[in-house]
Amino acid sequence: MSATPPPPAYPFTLQTPPGDNRPRMVCTDCGWIHYSNPKIVVGAVCLWEDQVLLCKRAIEPRRGFWTIPAGYLEEHESPEDGARREAAEEAQADIELSGLLGVYSIPRISQVQLIYRARLRSMAVAAGEESLEVGLYRFGDIPWDEIAFPSVHWALGHYREVGEAAIFAPRTNPPGATGRY
Amino acid sequence: MSATPPPPAYPFTLQTPPGDNRPRMVCTDCGWIHYSNPKIVVGAVCLWEDQVLLCKRAIEPRRGFWTIPAGYLEEHESPEDGARREAAEEAQADIELSGLLGVYSIPRISQVQLIYRARLRSMAVAAGEESLEVGLYRFGDIPWDEIAFPSVHWALGHYREVGEAAIFAPRTNPPGATGRY
Repeated sequence: MSATPPPPAYPFTLQTPPGDNRPRMVCTDCGWIHYSNPKIVVGAVCLWEDQVLLCKRAIEPRRGFWTIPAGYLEEHESPEDGARREAAEEAQADIELSGLLGVYSIPRISQVQLIYRARLRSMAVAAGEESLEVGLYRFGDIPWDEIAFPSVHWALGHYREVGEAAIFAPRTNPPGATGRY
Repeated sequence: MSATPPPPAYPFTLQTPPGDNRPRMVCTDCGWIHYSNPKIVVGAVCLWEDQVLLCKRAIEPRRGFWTIPAGYLEEHESPEDGARREAAEEAQADIELSGLLGVYSIPRISQVQLIYRARLRSMAVAAGEESLEVGLYRFGDIPWDEIAFPSVHWALGHYREVGEAAIFAPRTNPPGATGRY
């Protein structure tokens, strides 16, 4: 306990495993392959009558900007459960999902977003730990210049296209849009 | 180079980081949080006229059983690109996607599957490295007892529901189905 141990020597090298077709980080001692995977974000455009739930972010990135409730899917969680959990965590909102609104892809940061359409079961919403404040906005009153991420713009726009249609195909990134802001 | 270095001591403990609500593996030296994330599988039900493309798996799990072309999404790849890549890799198939057929969730193994509907641009298909053979099957001729995974059953069944409909909502797990086989 008295001496600081030397920093561990990680014997990883970038090599293409047998049967694979791209380089991975492989341990030269034991052959273990460290796969690095894209991440899943789940969220929802949540309506109360003609108003949409927005949360002002209390955390970086984009603290102080508005978003829909969304966040990383947890292990052993379905996307639907994740979207409901995020609404509860960020806006203390109880929501009912009614279809997959968008599947957005931000390859630059290896992110796939599954954004649902939802209804609030109650208009009792309040800021959770990751929100500075939450609010219900008519579309004409949304602070469009203070939206946190491009994909929030996409989802809100796609909800306006889809509305309360019973059957619709989920939207994807607008043509050419990569999620840069 | 002469002495084998001692195995590194990883000072990770399971603790709930500030502002978080569940335990993560946290390095007690530097505070780095190791998040463990669900994985995304992408694939496609690929049609040539009234026949569907199946691949007999050359790798475990379920070697020798039939599947649709599908696999892990790579980093910096969109789901659509991933589904096309898997069809090319596993069946040397050139496909055109025509809608998101299913979003399946296997929480037990933290997997989310995005399965597309697709058309083969050519019936020239051939086994890739991860397939023992590939074939085009009419639905009545599919070897249903030799299908690799429950989600392959789901996707094939959902294609039969959806057919070539122009607009449809993606399907999800059948009620109560968790992907156990």
